[in-house]
Amino acid sequence: MEKMGATVVSNKQVLFRDYVTGFPSESDLPITSTTVSLKIPAGSTTVLVKNLYLSCDPYMRNRMRKPDPLIPATAQSFIPGKPISGFGVSKVMDSGHQDYKEGDLIWGAVGWEEYSVITPIPNLHFKIHHKDFPLSYYTGLLGMPGMTAYAGFYEICSPKKGETVFVSAASGAVGQLVGQFAKMMGCFVVGSAGTKDKVDLLKNKFGFDDAFNYKQEKDLNAALKRCFPEGIDIYFDNVGGKMVDAVILNMRPHGRIAACGMISQYNLQIPEGVYGLSLITYKRIRIQGFNAIDYFHKYSEFAEFVVPYIRQGKITYVEDVADGLETAPSALVGLFHGKNVGKQLVVVSRDLV
Amino acid sequence: MEKMGATVVSNKQVLFRDYVTGFPSESDLPITSTTVSLKIPAGSTTVLVKNLYLSCDPYMRNRMRKPDPLIPATAQSFIPGKPISGFGVSKVMDSGHQDYKEGDLIWGAVGWEEYSVITPIPNLHFKIHHKDFPLSYYTGLLGMPGMTAYAGFYEICSPKKGETVFVSAASGAVGQLVGQFAKMMGCFVVGSAGTKDKVDLLKNKFGFDDAFNYKQEKDLNAALKRCFPEGIDIYFDNVGGKMVDAVILNMRPHGRIAACGMISQYNLQIPEGVYGLSLITYKRIRIQGFNAIDYFHKYSEFAEFVVPYIRQGKITYVEDVADGLETAPSALVGLFHGKNVGKQLVVVSRDLV
Repeated sequence: MEKMGATVVSNKQVLFRDYVTGFPSESDLPITSTTVSLKIPAGSTTVLVKNLYLSCDPYMRNRMRKPDPLIPATAQSFIPGKPISGFGVSKVMDSGHQDYKEGDLIWGAVGWEEYSVITPIPNLHFKIHHKDFPLSYYTGLLGMPGMTAYAGFYEICSPKKGETVFVSAASGAVGQLVGQFAKMMGCFVVGSAGTKDKVDLLKNKFGFDDAFNYKQEKDLNAALKRCFPEGIDIYFDNVGGKMVDAVILNMRPHGRIAACGMISQYNLQIPEGVYGLSLITYKRIRIQGFNAIDYFHKYSEFAEFVVPYIRQGKITYVEDVADGLETAPSALVGLFHGKNVGKQLVVVSRDLV
Repeated sequence: MEKMGATVVSNKQVLFRDYVTGFPSESDLPITSTTVSLKIPAGSTTVLVKNLYLSCDPYMRNRMRKPDPLIPATAQSFIPGKPISGFGVSKVMDSGHQDYKEGDLIWGAVGWEEYSVITPIPNLHFKIHHKDFPLSYYTGLLGMPGMTAYAGFYEICSPKKGETVFVSAASGAVGQLVGQFAKMMGCFVVGSAGTKDKVDLLKNKFGFDDAFNYKQEKDLNAALKRCFPEGIDIYFDNVGGKMVDAVILNMRPHGRIAACGMISQYNLQIPEGVYGLSLITYKRIRIQGFNAIDYFHKYSEFAEFVVPYIRQGKITYVEDVADGLETAPSALVGLFHGKNVGKQLVVVSRDLV
């Protein structure tokens, strides 16, 4: 393979200006342009990829904080002045790695830029085998959020047929799947979201039994009591804060809370307190924090499980697509204001060549 | 058996005046006297017991609240005007139940009174087989608190040799055992308590690796960081509130919190908030509420496990003994001010006849 005289092209990037307190804004994520060689240097085992889709995920807010030795490395802070990174779908342009070759499609950790040079890591970079789905699905349904919903629901929630399930941020990348998995298992499922349109989506598109707009409810406890007169067995928590307290009040004995993420807290300098924790003793409630990365070795098991359901039309997925790397900062920032309807992603390029 | 012309004797009782807000006081628990027949009526399957020892347990505070349909029945409220109830050690005086006979020693649920008429319930009333220990141990080490420490540590904490364990209210009925179980497993164990004497007990009698007086620490986070420079794997929580936040900050990835009880919160009208809950996602922390009653069917397994250790002197137990039913209200109230050193119990009678 020709390694000499490699083409050098421009490479737009989304930089991380500096550590953020409060809500991030677009000015925290300036766009810049550098250059990249389209050839991997001889002897290197890295891989050059062209990024096609980037995934906007709430956990990324935590990577905008000052580094904290108490936070595990899976949420390592972004480096000021460098491009931010996340999950994406990419095409291999050149490879010094024996397992990857030009033209391969992959999903996994990449920089927020047009081209990335990556060092493939098992269970953090995956080859895309099912190419009959929209490639963007590998930022969501068939990517990290899909694994999050799968591991979170089946491994963390210990669900049983007939149980009652509550999902917050339920129309989001993960929530919409958790609700559908729970329905498939024969659970009674209610979701919360922040707009009427999202609530409609939950009821009419994703098959939730009921849904409410938490912004329209004066009393979350009363809303949950109305939706769950017999109490909640499982809470899939994507928001944290006040909602956790309202859920604990309405939880049945031996209830389970999967602490998937707490987006309502990420931008607060002083987080909301959870006041009803002492009830978990009497109710024998289990609250379990988890991270999909710990389950990535089960990705092929997940794909085998979910792919037939997608093909049969039994699982549906709604995406919110921003077009062009320039729109990436506003797409990511919008997530923390609930602007996205469904999985937020950014198209960097639809050009597979 | 002669059932006619039964002797009637006086029966002192500790009444529940009315639902309590804030700290309970002795006036909430007036002593009264009634009478009781020492014979069970013919045809009845109840059992008349003479109470020897009564157990003062923090969970009893929750039974002083107004009934709340959201709280499971295991913490059912006391009934105003009736005697309170709890765990005790008793001697059978007369029995209409085929499995119990005069002279049997039992431990389990009884009223706070000199004599109780009970309906034996499997796994809530146990015959005492090992009589070579102080009978009072069946209010603690060999009773409900023992089961709580056993189930809580081995079933809820998933402990492994070499892990770091923190126990709050560590010199109490449950904490002193959890610490000793953890040491037996080869863990590094630190306890907190509220006086210098209790801290000395932890270090010098119960074999904790370290201990601190939480009332003397300005910053619980700093105290935990000092004791656990590498972080905490397991927290056995008997206190709740601020301590939970400090622990979460210092917890290692995949840490476990056994939510055994939250005595610091029981008397507050507005509980303290726990602010750092969103960290449990990144740290994959599991918080599990539990109640020893769910494990009472394993009591004989527990006894088989613990009895040899007691006989070999490998487990020690400190009791705080109040003498006479008249002292029971102040003994129970004292618990919520940390007055007890070790397991608080009340001797009603040492008279086995």
